[in-house]
Amino acid sequence: MNDLLHSPTRRQLLSMIGKTAGATAMYQAMTTLGFASESSFKQEIDLKGAPAGASIVILGAGLSGLTAAYELRKAGYKITVLEYQNRGGGRSWTLNSGDKYTELGGEEVTCDFEKGNYFNGGPWRLPVHHYAVFHYCKKFNVALQPFIQTNDRAYLHRTNHFNGAPQRLGEVQSDIRGYVSELLSKAVNKGSLDDTVTKEDKEKLLEGLKGWGVLDNSYRYVKSHETSKHRGYSVYPGGGLMPDAKPSTPIPMKKLLDSGMWSDLYANYTVYVHQPAMFQPVGGMGKIGDAFTRECRDMIKFNAKVTKIKQDETGVTVDYIDSTNSESNNSEGSVKSVRADWCICTIPLSVLTQIDINVSEPMKQAMAAVPYDSSYKVGLEFKRRFWEEDEWIYGGITYTDLPITQISYPSQDLFTQGSGVLLGAYGFGETSYKFNSLTPKERIKAALEYGKRIHPQYPKEFRSGTSVAWHRIPWSLGCYGIWSESSREQYYDTLCSIDHRIVLAGEHCSHIPAWQEGAILSGMDAAKRLHQKAKKLG
Amino acid sequence: MNDLLHSPTRRQLLSMIGKTAGATAMYQAMTTLGFASESSFKQEIDLKGAPAGASIVILGAGLSGLTAAYELRKAGYKITVLEYQNRGGGRSWTLNSGDKYTELGGEEVTCDFEKGNYFNGGPWRLPVHHYAVFHYCKKFNVALQPFIQTNDRAYLHRTNHFNGAPQRLGEVQSDIRGYVSELLSKAVNKGSLDDTVTKEDKEKLLEGLKGWGVLDNSYRYVKSHETSKHRGYSVYPGGGLMPDAKPSTPIPMKKLLDSGMWSDLYANYTVYVHQPAMFQPVGGMGKIGDAFTRECRDMIKFNAKVTKIKQDETGVTVDYIDSTNSESNNSEGSVKSVRADWCICTIPLSVLTQIDINVSEPMKQAMAAVPYDSSYKVGLEFKRRFWEEDEWIYGGITYTDLPITQISYPSQDLFTQGSGVLLGAYGFGETSYKFNSLTPKERIKAALEYGKRIHPQYPKEFRSGTSVAWHRIPWSLGCYGIWSESSREQYYDTLCSIDHRIVLAGEHCSHIPAWQEGAILSGMDAAKRLHQKAKKLG
Repeated sequence: MNDLLHSPTRRQLLSMIGKTAGATAMYQAMTTLGFASESSFKQEIDLKGAPAGASIVILGAGLSGLTAAYELRKAGYKITVLEYQNRGGGRSWTLNSGDKYTELGGEEVTCDFEKGNYFNGGPWRLPVHHYAVFHYCKKFNVALQPFIQTNDRAYLHRTNHFNGAPQRLGEVQSDIRGYVSELLSKAVNKGSLDDTVTKEDKEKLLEGLKGWGVLDNSYRYVKSHETSKHRGYSVYPGGGLMPDAKPSTPIPMKKLLDSGMWSDLYANYTVYVHQPAMFQPVGGMGKIGDAFTRECRDMIKFNAKVTKIKQDETGVTVDYIDSTNSESNNSEGSVKSVRADWCICTIPLSVLTQIDINVSEPMKQAMAAVPYDSSYKVGLEFKRRFWEEDEWIYGGITYTDLPITQISYPSQDLFTQGSGVLLGAYGFGETSYKFNSLTPKERIKAALEYGKRIHPQYPKEFRSGTSVAWHRIPWSLGCYGIWSESSREQYYDTLCSIDHRIVLAGEHCSHIPAWQEGAILSGMDAAKRLHQKAKKLG
Repeated sequence: MNDLLHSPTRRQLLSMIGKTAGATAMYQAMTTLGFASESSFKQEIDLKGAPAGASIVILGAGLSGLTAAYELRKAGYKITVLEYQNRGGGRSWTLNSGDKYTELGGEEVTCDFEKGNYFNGGPWRLPVHHYAVFHYCKKFNVALQPFIQTNDRAYLHRTNHFNGAPQRLGEVQSDIRGYVSELLSKAVNKGSLDDTVTKEDKEKLLEGLKGWGVLDNSYRYVKSHETSKHRGYSVYPGGGLMPDAKPSTPIPMKKLLDSGMWSDLYANYTVYVHQPAMFQPVGGMGKIGDAFTRECRDMIKFNAKVTKIKQDETGVTVDYIDSTNSESNNSEGSVKSVRADWCICTIPLSVLTQIDINVSEPMKQAMAAVPYDSSYKVGLEFKRRFWEEDEWIYGGITYTDLPITQISYPSQDLFTQGSGVLLGAYGFGETSYKFNSLTPKERIKAALEYGKRIHPQYPKEFRSGTSVAWHRIPWSLGCYGIWSESSREQYYDTLCSIDHRIVLAGEHCSHIPAWQEGAILSGMDAAKRLHQKAKKLG
């Protein structure tokens, strides 16, 4: 290829390359790489032709409910959305300076951050494959910016290894590649894999291992300038007559294996939902919830607590308590009801299973078959961005075996002076039950005490904290639906099917639980199927 | 650890964890992780106490020259900076809409992009270890944002492999990890490495390989939902009753090895200068050059072409042609000279070796010992961001064996409508000589013809192009100094030493050639050493 531009005949050759043999073949190859084959989100659903006067009541103004509302209104339906809270967006939610909410048990959680600082209580990052989220963000003018998931400067931390000292992600990654390559080279050079690898492949394999593992001429991974070009130096190369660069020392393989840090790489980095690049809305994830709410505002009744969902031959009646004025007139709110031809119910199953609803027995069983995972997040505001100023960590995540599980460094406002907010704890499963049993104040204290083992600057620089413990959030009673392979097999299709005049939607009705993409795709799918049924029945 | 927050005794335990045994030990461990031990940039140099009336002439208003000017003025020196061009910043340079320049040979290169679009002709990304750049960016209020180097959705491309179809970086990475893990597991399970790996380590190694390589229970890397969770699906999981997810098929190992794509991983991604996270100034790299120029403007004489540098016992006289008014009065410009006690010369060696300068013979030999690499860059503006809209590539870089070498997708203005600019070609070495021999128009044509093999949308969406071929840039005659291990050994210290009253600086006088960090660190170092000598001589 390199010869094509050789100067003597360049005019002639430029015309030759203009022909680019294979461009058509390439185009066909390209289409197989296009999004059509890769995403369940294919294109905007463009529903048309609702039966005259047909109406739908949608329960819940989260992303699934509002996606359905937005698309079905375009098709011509009369839509009413009932929302428990005084805001839309559901779990697509950002706590800003001055925000507060009351959690189960009556404790008030405040966010006393400086203006401009924020904390995402729920979702916080967008994988590059979440096309439906991107689609609506573009449509609704939600600006997105890079979210730094992978930062080789962030740490991996094990309480009982390396004397509790955190290790740089990049160093651990390089060293694992190095040792794996060294060992495999050894086996290959010994002839141990001659039954598997052809002689021709053997040479290419060794060449690749040597480069990828940064092995020396004896196929060993050792301290050197070469390995330091990948894992980082002890003293970095400088300018002029500054002190000479000093190579860094790889972590001994045994220590690496013992620490168990290897598992952080495949649990947190190589999975496709965490692959670079990832994104976040400018100003917090709640901007997505806000945008959906803005687009759908005239359809939504806020402060509406659904108490009963009753379907019959001709429609669905939903009873709810309207607490809009209950605070001012010191009442429990007034009981109201909405009648519509159809109902899309996006209420989390953890709440829905406590509501009077007449669906089929199989549907009831499916609704009861999905437990809700909890999770907790603590946001910590510090007076200065010490992780940047002292440790040169700009974005990314530190993973630890402490109960805080991880510390995430903000991807926005990088290199600025003044305060900043860390995600100081974010875990799920067993750890979350323990964190959730603490009061809001204790949660912050715990996050600070644990976190200072990784960042000793914590006590001196702490300014303010806030948290979300999802089991204590009254409108969701948990964070997301937990599916197992067997519960999927047994209940998923039933849960997603249209039960007479009611269809469920939400992240729990998707194969992407806990992600906004799942909620939106579920809303799109429910809207489409309900529309088909409504048209058929006329 | 998990038991510490168990509820029955949580108050008691919270007080226990408050003691965080080991925090002090941790702090000490932390300081060894701090920047002091990691960078040649330690802290702001705070030079003080220039001898009364001492003066320095600095040649070149690039980053090294202006760093020295800025710091030495603070120390009290009278500084004059002579700059060949009518702007400062040197290679820290961005072409904006409406910009143009004349290259060697007389061709004018224009940048006819839409307003707001830009092209970095020189440096374009900041590694996370380039602390000196960050320091001055903060000081001079240059806003930085993430630069997406690694995007698993971008491509690797080999003309003669996979029928010319580009492969996704993430898929290649996963498959290589998978096959390497499979082979090493096989060798370990066979006992081939029993002389190297202890029985205890063996189990941990197998566990790690299984997770990292996403191997099945027989330690094989195969098509499955599990491997698809890392390499991506053929059809991604969806919502509701959308079509079932379909696993993707790994690339056969032999094809991967044959393609040589493995080398792209270690050449372009795992090196520390390309590790995530990386950054870029908001609005283009030239913002850094602009900021230095703004801070130093009153010291700079623009349009000053140095013709002679002559030192004697008491100072240095620099002759230059002042072409400030030469265009208006149709002259060659007037010959002027500056006299100062000391001189810092940052003129690229490719140009300097053609200037009359009286330095020692060893210094002359050192100056002549560093050839300059060329490189070329082509910026292509397209009517729409098809790489995002059609291929879901948001930022990142595609590497190819075509002469364009790479295609980089912008990290800014992501998800917006309208036009965008790709770095359509950026190579060095042999390829660059070929590209540099083309006219500016031909360069764009070549970049388009090659690039459309990867992005068939090119011809339809192309709007405008521009380029920089560094061998044709009159003020640098190349892109950066090329050092070999032996030339470093023989000439580097001499090149950086103070030759009587003259000291050189620039990326060529650093261990980080081609990077702005090298230029700035060299400028800092030269300033510091010259100041020491000047104070000593009084």
